[in-house]
Amino acid sequence: MLNYEIKIFTGRANPILAHEIASYLGLTLGKHTPGNFPDGEISYRIDEDVRGRDVFIVQPTCSPVNETLMELLIMIDAFRRASAARIAVVLPYYGYARQDRKDQGRVPITAKLVADLITKAGASRVLTLDLHAAQIQGFFDIPVDHLMAGPIFVRYLRDQRYRPEDIVFVSPDEGRVKTSVFYQKRLGGELAIVDKRRTSATETKQANLIGASLKDKICFMFDDMISTGGSIVGAVNIAKAAGAKEVHIFATHPILCGQAVEKLRDAPINSIVVTNTIPIPPQKQLPNMKTLSVGPLLGEAIRRLHSNESVSRLFDPL
Amino acid sequence: MLNYEIKIFTGRANPILAHEIASYLGLTLGKHTPGNFPDGEISYRIDEDVRGRDVFIVQPTCSPVNETLMELLIMIDAFRRASAARIAVVLPYYGYARQDRKDQGRVPITAKLVADLITKAGASRVLTLDLHAAQIQGFFDIPVDHLMAGPIFVRYLRDQRYRPEDIVFVSPDEGRVKTSVFYQKRLGGELAIVDKRRTSATETKQANLIGASLKDKICFMFDDMISTGGSIVGAVNIAKAAGAKEVHIFATHPILCGQAVEKLRDAPINSIVVTNTIPIPPQKQLPNMKTLSVGPLLGEAIRRLHSNESVSRLFDPL
Amino acid sequence: MLNYEIKIFTGRANPILAHEIASYLGLTLGKHTPGNFPDGEISYRIDEDVRGRDVFIVQPTCSPVNETLMELLIMIDAFRRASAARIAVVLPYYGYARQDRKDQGRVPITAKLVADLITKAGASRVLTLDLHAAQIQGFFDIPVDHLMAGPIFVRYLRDQRYRPEDIVFVSPDEGRVKTSVFYQKRLGGELAIVDKRRTSATETKQANLIGASLKDKICFMFDDMISTGGSIVGAVNIAKAAGAKEVHIFATHPILCGQAVEKLRDAPINSIVVTNTIPIPPQKQLPNMKTLSVGPLLGEAIRRLHSNESVSRLFDPL
Amino acid sequence: MLNYEIKIFTGRANPILAHEIASYLGLTLGKHTPGNFPDGEISYRIDEDVRGRDVFIVQPTCSPVNETLMELLIMIDAFRRASAARIAVVLPYYGYARQDRKDQGRVPITAKLVADLITKAGASRVLTLDLHAAQIQGFFDIPVDHLMAGPIFVRYLRDQRYRPEDIVFVSPDEGRVKTSVFYQKRLGGELAIVDKRRTSATETKQANLIGASLKDKICFMFDDMISTGGSIVGAVNIAKAAGAKEVHIFATHPILCGQAVEKLRDAPINSIVVTNTIPIPPQKQLPNMKTLSVGPLLGEAIRRLHSNESVSRLFDPL
Amino acid sequence: MLNYEIKIFTGRANPILAHEIASYLGLTLGKHTPGNFPDGEISYRIDEDVRGRDVFIVQPTCSPVNETLMELLIMIDAFRRASAARIAVVLPYYGYARQDRKDQGRVPITAKLVADLITKAGASRVLTLDLHAAQIQGFFDIPVDHLMAGPIFVRYLRDQRYRPEDIVFVSPDEGRVKTSVFYQKRLGGELAIVDKRRTSATETKQANLIGASLKDKICFMFDDMISTGGSIVGAVNIAKAAGAKEVHIFATHPILCGQAVEKLRDAPINSIVVTNTIPIPPQKQLPNMKTLSVGPLLGEAIRRLHSNESVSRLFDPL
Amino acid sequence: MLNYEIKIFTGRANPILAHEIASYLGLTLGKHTPGNFPDGEISYRIDEDVRGRDVFIVQPTCSPVNETLMELLIMIDAFRRASAARIAVVLPYYGYARQDRKDQGRVPITAKLVADLITKAGASRVLTLDLHAAQIQGFFDIPVDHLMAGPIFVRYLRDQRYRPEDIVFVSPDEGRVKTSVFYQKRLGGELAIVDKRRTSATETKQANLIGASLKDKICFMFDDMISTGGSIVGAVNIAKAAGAKEVHIFATHPILCGQAVEKLRDAPINSIVVTNTIPIPPQKQLPNMKTLSVGPLLGEAIRRLHSNESVSRLFDPL
Repeated sequence: MLNYEIKIFTGRANPILAHEIASYLGLTLGKHTPGNFPDGEISYRIDEDVRGRDVFIVQPTCSPVNETLMELLIMIDAFRRASAARIAVVLPYYGYARQDRKDQGRVPITAKLVADLITKAGASRVLTLDLHAAQIQGFFDIPVDHLMAGPIFVRYLRDQRYRPEDIVFVSPDEGRVKTSVFYQKRLGGELAIVDKRRTSATETKQANLIGASLKDKICFMFDDMISTGGSIVGAVNIAKAAGAKEVHIFATHPILCGQAVEKLRDAPINSIVVTNTIPIPPQKQLPNMKTLSVGPLLGEAIRRLHSNESVSRLFDPL
Repeated sequence: MLNYEIKIFTGRANPILAHEIASYLGLTLGKHTPGNFPDGEISYRIDEDVRGRDVFIVQPTCSPVNETLMELLIMIDAFRRASAARIAVVLPYYGYARQDRKDQGRVPITAKLVADLITKAGASRVLTLDLHAAQIQGFFDIPVDHLMAGPIFVRYLRDQRYRPEDIVFVSPDEGRVKTSVFYQKRLGGELAIVDKRRTSATETKQANLIGASLKDKICFMFDDMISTGGSIVGAVNIAKAAGAKEVHIFATHPILCGQAVEKLRDAPINSIVVTNTIPIPPQKQLPNMKTLSVGPLLGEAIRRLHSNESVSRLFDPL
Repeated sequence: MLNYEIKIFTGRANPILAHEIASYLGLTLGKHTPGNFPDGEISYRIDEDVRGRDVFIVQPTCSPVNETLMELLIMIDAFRRASAARIAVVLPYYGYARQDRKDQGRVPITAKLVADLITKAGASRVLTLDLHAAQIQGFFDIPVDHLMAGPIFVRYLRDQRYRPEDIVFVSPDEGRVKTSVFYQKRLGGELAIVDKRRTSATETKQANLIGASLKDKICFMFDDMISTGGSIVGAVNIAKAAGAKEVHIFATHPILCGQAVEKLRDAPINSIVVTNTIPIPPQKQLPNMKTLSVGPLLGEAIRRLHSNESVSRLFDPL
Repeated sequence: MLNYEIKIFTGRANPILAHEIASYLGLTLGKHTPGNFPDGEISYRIDEDVRGRDVFIVQPTCSPVNETLMELLIMIDAFRRASAARIAVVLPYYGYARQDRKDQGRVPITAKLVADLITKAGASRVLTLDLHAAQIQGFFDIPVDHLMAGPIFVRYLRDQRYRPEDIVFVSPDEGRVKTSVFYQKRLGGELAIVDKRRTSATETKQANLIGASLKDKICFMFDDMISTGGSIVGAVNIAKAAGAKEVHIFATHPILCGQAVEKLRDAPINSIVVTNTIPIPPQKQLPNMKTLSVGPLLGEAIRRLHSNESVSRLFDPL
Repeated sequence: MLNYEIKIFTGRANPILAHEIASYLGLTLGKHTPGNFPDGEISYRIDEDVRGRDVFIVQPTCSPVNETLMELLIMIDAFRRASAARIAVVLPYYGYARQDRKDQGRVPITAKLVADLITKAGASRVLTLDLHAAQIQGFFDIPVDHLMAGPIFVRYLRDQRYRPEDIVFVSPDEGRVKTSVFYQKRLGGELAIVDKRRTSATETKQANLIGASLKDKICFMFDDMISTGGSIVGAVNIAKAAGAKEVHIFATHPILCGQAVEKLRDAPINSIVVTNTIPIPPQKQLPNMKTLSVGPLLGEAIRRLHSNESVSRLFDPL
Repeated sequence: MLNYEIKIFTGRANPILAHEIASYLGLTLGKHTPGNFPDGEISYRIDEDVRGRDVFIVQPTCSPVNETLMELLIMIDAFRRASAARIAVVLPYYGYARQDRKDQGRVPITAKLVADLITKAGASRVLTLDLHAAQIQGFFDIPVDHLMAGPIFVRYLRDQRYRPEDIVFVSPDEGRVKTSVFYQKRLGGELAIVDKRRTSATETKQANLIGASLKDKICFMFDDMISTGGSIVGAVNIAKAAGAKEVHIFATHPILCGQAVEKLRDAPINSIVVTNTIPIPPQKQLPNMKTLSVGPLLGEAIRRLHSNESVSRLFDPL
């Protein structure tokens, strides 16, 4: 199977992950000079031949999202004008993914806008991970490969050797029931749902649990991301109030904005398991935080993309 | 506020609904000649002036979906070439909406393909109702107004004057919890979820209920569509087995394919409340079936679109 | 000359022809799962790796045209999203080809719409045969290779060893004169035209013959397709009334809709020679029907497309 | 019916026709400065407000075709950038129309290229007349109104008060039979066809007549254009040799290139009736040449386009 | 002249200028809710009807450029999906304008990328001011109106009543000679050029003056923007060293990044005259700084755009 | 590094240069048949296999620009439809480059229009030389490689072995100062500028020199093109009047239109050094004219493009 030479470049959002991916592939990262002009405009120059090459740009569009997104678009423009054969965008985290529909009148669908901008800039394909809504794949007309971190968490939990009869998968809200079912099917245990409702704006919020009893159980809560942490910490407290022995929380994307770190530190959480799609600066690291790497998963996906092997096998149900 | 003359045309999928919409607006339907050539190809001719007019084409892309969709595309082509000022597509039901993402490798995203085909044919805007996934709005770059039948069902249920303490909203599976919460918030009562899981392919499916007790309760189950009916009838049986006094099911889109009518007739269902987005032929009508019209809702939306008033107020939370 | 691996897939319109093409190339057809959901929506899944492959999809968009066309579009979408390197659409018969212009006001140009839909879905090139109007090539901006069945018919007729002095090529109407001239130039014989005119709507249609005498001659009538058969059978009767000894009719595309088979069976036709661009179900087969295969022609064209050899030589004038 | 102010501008190809059109509409032509820089590049400046206006540009892309076409494209660009509301291109003659398909391998389809260039430059609609092939309408995705000069010729001939029994419509080749039938149906008389064939490259061309006898008849020959005149003059000579009393030739587009004028002058032609889609310079005028104006037809079409009335009625069959 | 209702909205980059523009037009700014989610993503909601309105969005894409640009794109998306009739983008300052070509291999052309992003997001037209390179107009296919602040500076200088014999226009480098000539032609006085060259990398930079003597003269230096100030301050020092009595500097766009304010404060500059295309925060204000408003110019341009009057007269040579 | 077979074709604008380029690459030019139909329309046919090949079309769009540009577009169309893998357009001279912005209201930006036409016709990339404005690169979204003839002129002048102290680089107007600085930096010597101003339309033009004295110096004047020659000859006369010993003029593109040759012959010019981007017919050759070939530069660029090596090194600063 013939093919183009492969090159991996990284934006400035998550260079460590990009290095891990390149290492997996036995490559070094492409040479370039990203920077900023004195007025804050992004400058960029590619410092090696890319003409006719198969280029992968690794850039989660995490905070500061407008900077990382514009840097990505500018890099794509540079590679297109430098005649790269194909430009694949690797988005371990897809910023603005939650703005994926008009839930009220006269708002943008920024997740679609981002897809249009990436396509217009000149990307040939997208490789991404745990999109907030799977339908975002359809926002693109270029091919999208959508990986899932689920198998990484399943493997991690299997390695912990919990007994099924001790564990409950607790969905932190009504929208995450399907995710909890995904893990419960693979790992056994019971299922429960935190039910948050508000009958009117003036009444106080009431929350309660539906499903299995948490009494003396080890609870696992999964979300795709931890943003301000308010929602998950609230659910943790409910679980503890219901008698949970341990609570472990899992999320692919550690956004950790606002007072998230403070809230997480102060909450009765036994462990916080996330991936490295978004880098966590040292001051946001907590002792009970465990980071699993998505580098090998992304690296293997790129290897398969490049050698025209099936990527879909990477996310086949376990 | 200046504007173009408005014209409403209907494809052959649901002319009765189109007539209701036109009546609401005090208009008659546009004159045209849809048909088929002897080999089955669709023929079409517009029989009145449409140059510079603001045209609305009413066509749910319901079964036979490939016929109704192609007829819609051919109509759009004819109106574009006949120099209509703007062409709005009114899709009370959006066919192929469930193919909205790649849930496995190497499948199409037909819902996006349909959006691309409608746009390419020349539509200027889309007006639709209760999309299977709200993200489908983002499959379009032309403006989409997404209406909800929710207020119609709420009004219907309020007219029935149930007592909140008698009712339970039962989500027929994990994916419909949010919808049940929507109604429960507006109408009171309790919440329950039918939990369907399968630990392995060889084990038998087990299903049970999470949440409020159904014992002697009036149960309401909401789905966006009833297709083969298998899923909802299964949930009905579980509810009845759990002691429910009455079970009423609600769905915007009465697809009713396969053995749906037989299954619904034989199930212990007190009433089946649907809308007329999809026409139900007489042989599929059941005595306990109640059809609410979306004609006034769509008509009012068109009136507002045409007079540049806010449509979003139509779907503001109650 | 480097190249991608080739894969042939077939829609459900004419799998036998697709098998013939694949056999010619020493290949087996690609594995996939086409189907329909219970409500009639088309489901589709590719069951082998196609990433980076050169894919040919064989699908005449014959009756039921809206089904076969939508299946084609959905297949293209799936192959594009599965990252096929190039997607060539093989259209042995191009449905809607007769809707190729506005011959009256306010009608669609569906042949152009179809071209736009195929392009938008993601096709890279088109291979087709005996288009109703050669200008349809220009409806595409992607490359189109337009093959002709003419050489197949010429070879067939040469094998019959008719004497030029015995034969007359009879154009069944004014629009087919050029086609008759094409064969007459290559095979000798005389030329005649059936002249159909109607002086007013109320007067009866009069038809007569222009050109060579048909008395005791063997007549050959060529059309690109036989649809309802009315036109060609009318011409056959005129030829017989003019003393023709034998009448043989030829058409690339055996649409055979409406009462075509009955009309053909009852008419004084010696033989009906068609190709297999459209499958003829057993109940439509007539004893005097002869089907010539376009499989080797299409197979050879694909071989040349794939190895970057000239396809145009396949349709050079004999 | 609300509307934008209308403005008519003319390129330099046929300003007299543009003046006739503007006069019909009671307008004067828009002010502008077309020109050429010393190196031959076209310069252009609009000299009055056109922002928000409905602009019609009259420009047959006749010889020198590359100059008139580029001037048209440059004018469209200027009007688009000057924010005209809509830009309609009036193409009384569509240059390159005969390059409308690939009749051999590896040639351009220049008629489609021209359509793409006009669209890309920014035209909103096209108004044209007697296209060489009606399918060219489908080369555009913008609306095309295709007028026919047929009614003008019919009216002219009716005014001449010929007796049907004296006249024969002679098709100058096999491809024009349908056109002859069009006139014969409306005006009576008989039909004949000049049959040109060549059995092999070494044999001399033989031509003869099929159909009605021309003996002592008044013959009318119609073509859409007279280019070098070779073909029509050959047909005239055959008609005369067959005993025709008079021969009159008709063509919408008087291209008159090469030795056309000399050939026409020397041929036994009673009258040459053309339209003014293409201007005929004085030195190409012949005493037996009659020019009918398409100005009122185009003017009326523009009036209807602008007031959103039906244009199709202008070309309804008589 | 019919028209749509006009609405002016402002991004968060320069609301004061937007208010001035709206005031000039007798309007108030449109109601909306711009904001940021906790993770820094931009949120946006339009709070009044805009369907069918003619919307102008005022947003100089000044520092922080990636924030202001993304906010602009998100606003355009929201207005497009809310069915604004037309969306005009008012860019008093065009960020990334200096990245307008590839002056070395493998760099982006970010100014073109920005044009593509604005167009893709859905803008209908652009109104901008003193582009760094006039060719950027050609980066757009939508209409661009390019205003010039030149007349504002000319009027300001005329009001100062300098005597032509006292003044010299000093071009701060070779690239600004044409600008200096523009003002010298309108205001009289002499011309001089600061000539900066470097014969090799190791030699020190030498700078000297070409043209008129500056001895005891009042010097005016014009640039389109003041960025870090290094270049203009260097030129000022050369002018003073050459005996200039006064030095006044002028620039449309006060970027003032890096140590610009410190450098300007410490340099022997009599006055710094800029416009308010970019807001200058209080801490960057200097006593000798004079800000001229472009509000009336932009307001008048919008008025003319909206009423379809000529904008070009606003920038006709004085 | 895998690659496609390369083929070089030439339009009819400059076949000698195309032959030089092909020779450099060890190739012969591709076989084809360009021509004109009798009415002036361009005919074109490719006479060898190009399917899957990497095609380069050499065509400066020099005078007659509309002919050469249309021929280029038609060739691109033919190659695209003949399935060339990639189509690179080699534009040694880019016609209409000076129409690169709206310097007054309501004019076209023809340089952008040309870019859009070339892209729409189907070009994959552009290779060009000394664009009138470097920003034209940004008019394209396809990759553009922009070569510079500067190194060729520098090499030529170094070979002449002038002493730096004898030479002055004279900018013929304010807009060419940067070009003069480019050469002065590389070759030493002094700098001067011809300053042309006009205080009012009625006053006579005054011109004088700014910068170094020309007395007894060898003057070099550089422009990107010589069009009518009026401007450069005026500057030459000023230089001679200022005492210049010799004047040599240099330009990449010898347009030489209008009375250019007469003016150049009669002016006191020692040598005129140009390149062969545009062919100079024998009757325009002057004894003091020296033509440097850009063939090796373009040939080497094509070689690098084809083998995916860096082209940017070809135009790195010396």
